[in-house]
Amino acid sequence: MARIQIITLTTDFGTRDAYVGTIKGIILSMAPRVTLVDITHEIQAHDIMAASFVLAQSAPYFPKDTLHVAIVDPTVGTDRRILAARLGGQYFLLPDNGLITFVAKALPLEEIVTVRNTAYLPPPNISMTFHGRDIFAPLAGHLANGLDLRTLGPRPETFKLLGLPPVRQDGPTLIGEVVYVDTFGNLITNIPAQLVRDRWAMLDDVCVRCAGRDVGTLQGTYGFVDQDQPLALFNSSDLVEVAINRGRASDVLQAGVGAEIRLATRGG
Amino acid sequence: MARIQIITLTTDFGTRDAYVGTIKGIILSMAPRVTLVDITHEIQAHDIMAASFVLAQSAPYFPKDTLHVAIVDPTVGTDRRILAARLGGQYFLLPDNGLITFVAKALPLEEIVTVRNTAYLPPPNISMTFHGRDIFAPLAGHLANGLDLRTLGPRPETFKLLGLPPVRQDGPTLIGEVVYVDTFGNLITNIPAQLVRDRWAMLDDVCVRCAGRDVGTLQGTYGFVDQDQPLALFNSSDLVEVAINRGRASDVLQAGVGAEIRLATRGG
Amino acid sequence: MARIQIITLTTDFGTRDAYVGTIKGIILSMAPRVTLVDITHEIQAHDIMAASFVLAQSAPYFPKDTLHVAIVDPTVGTDRRILAARLGGQYFLLPDNGLITFVAKALPLEEIVTVRNTAYLPPPNISMTFHGRDIFAPLAGHLANGLDLRTLGPRPETFKLLGLPPVRQDGPTLIGEVVYVDTFGNLITNIPAQLVRDRWAMLDDVCVRCAGRDVGTLQGTYGFVDQDQPLALFNSSDLVEVAINRGRASDVLQAGVGAEIRLATRGG
Repeated sequence: MARIQIITLTTDFGTRDAYVGTIKGIILSMAPRVTLVDITHEIQAHDIMAASFVLAQSAPYFPKDTLHVAIVDPTVGTDRRILAARLGGQYFLLPDNGLITFVAKALPLEEIVTVRNTAYLPPPNISMTFHGRDIFAPLAGHLANGLDLRTLGPRPETFKLLGLPPVRQDGPTLIGEVVYVDTFGNLITNIPAQLVRDRWAMLDDVCVRCAGRDVGTLQGTYGFVDQDQPLALFNSSDLVEVAINRGRASDVLQAGVGAEIRLATRGG
Repeated sequence: MARIQIITLTTDFGTRDAYVGTIKGIILSMAPRVTLVDITHEIQAHDIMAASFVLAQSAPYFPKDTLHVAIVDPTVGTDRRILAARLGGQYFLLPDNGLITFVAKALPLEEIVTVRNTAYLPPPNISMTFHGRDIFAPLAGHLANGLDLRTLGPRPETFKLLGLPPVRQDGPTLIGEVVYVDTFGNLITNIPAQLVRDRWAMLDDVCVRCAGRDVGTLQGTYGFVDQDQPLALFNSSDLVEVAINRGRASDVLQAGVGAEIRLATRGG
Repeated sequence: MARIQIITLTTDFGTRDAYVGTIKGIILSMAPRVTLVDITHEIQAHDIMAASFVLAQSAPYFPKDTLHVAIVDPTVGTDRRILAARLGGQYFLLPDNGLITFVAKALPLEEIVTVRNTAYLPPPNISMTFHGRDIFAPLAGHLANGLDLRTLGPRPETFKLLGLPPVRQDGPTLIGEVVYVDTFGNLITNIPAQLVRDRWAMLDDVCVRCAGRDVGTLQGTYGFVDQDQPLALFNSSDLVEVAINRGRASDVLQAGVGAEIRLATRGG
């Protein structure tokens, strides 16, 4: 097994407390030469879907054999399992609560196990509230030191996936919804650019409505409309996104995760 | 003296300004091979007690010979002193304003000096407002390069410790208070789990009140009560903590640092 | 050309989303041995002047041959150009939208090019919304691997500089304005300490007004006035700054960027 040189962290721990520092201390104690990269610790508390989305957006850009540790874990200490997996040449260590969902959509699954080997788990009477420190960090250290993930446990028959909203077609209209709101207030939807390109040859004719409001046709980039004007575009992840040039679409359109987006040509 | 390979930073500087980057630039200019780890820069401005608590929570998990630089320093530029110390195999560099308090409770003191050697201090006419840049960062660089901390100055006769609230006993009741509120709104108290375990054999009988409200008996973890319900537990630092499952106890109970917590058995 | 060992990042991307992690993944894929340092990702969205100020404050403290990548880029995807430059022994990669302004004031320009070499640019039909990922990160990787920046394009005839407010003299009064508000609410102005020192021999006689309010004479540091009292001082960047001891001047004085500051002796 290739040696892991980079470990990324994606959590909802925030950056105010000792939690992240503690995890880094443990990993560096075990694997001092590893490079630690924070994807984010600002996932909204317990928002598994947002964590899954962010992780899947960034993981593919890391070098082969990077280990991604993701901990958004509202049911920590209950009987939810922990998964160690390899997808698309990258390693992942995360609770089996659906966090893997967008990663599993984006990258081919190569290996997955449920962590069950007691040699790599603390005794059952330890603190049940900070698995990041007591389980995930030591496991990351072991994997960084070359432990084969298949050592950690058996392949599970199934693992939890979040129910993602499907893109629907209603006659000539494509209907999706907002799945993520970024820090700029941009509304990222579940509609892949490819689906739109496949359906309509002339993109300039496609009108977009979001949260009940007309946001115009698809633009090349934010600056192609006037300041404070709404627009839709294919974003950097090749998903349809609704934005306001230099503004916050989530505020202006009063829309968030779950808001409806409709695409249709002018004629209908 | 062992070579320092990791330097952590704990400050109230925030992450919006140039302050943290400047300090890192100086340290890396002097000791390019050092690994920098942010514990946090989100300590509330001037909150020495919170900084001390967070530092003491995370420092013990770092490898031996890590240097922890902590700067929450509302009296910067006045005659407050700077301490360089070694506790529990770790190095610490911090203002002598009580920041060392929780660390000194958690780790055995091995060496401590007041930084007074003018060879390692800027001339007295330099900026008095950014000791992080002008004093702490260069000192960290020197220590990382192998400088013996005893070179920096004499052992002080005393150093400042914050007055921590004691745990009191009122007949059959154990009374403590909240000493830290984490990013999830969890209320962390000054009552050690061991004190509770020593006092009561049957933990299931121990009822907890916080900020005047019944929060039930001690639970194993957050998920053992229904969503939005309050609970008490022994947290990952083995302190009594009051929380809301998937919610914010600080908001729901309207409680913060200093809020009273009372433990007693049902019978009294 | 010297090999770049440190790359800093200054953006308005925030730390909630996948954007920063993605950029780091790409850089580490190309240049795994580089040390990445976040200056900040908390620049207010689209605030080019604040980004320029923060970058110029911290860059000079980094080792020679550090590469500073700065991306605050509201006109991403339009025809704004990208600059690669060397100033004061440091490398800079940033959009040509004025972001270089304070750096160009602080450090001597040694080399500057407009990035135009298509061998190092993506094909024109790629996503136009995330140049951080598609252009800046790969360019940083190439520079870290030793690419001469003159390879990237020709020297521009001119590049964009922000119009900074001048310090004015009105009879015996020096008039400037706030150019940056830091995380503590300190009001940093455009008046260099040297200008004040050159003008008045007796600094104790200089009275400061900010946003229409008397904030007293120039102090040595924050702790020289009582808690919650306003003061003016020469800050760590040798600029006149208005603050509240242990408080937030921006809130108390209700002042922000653009607020007027006036210095005069008591007599006038």
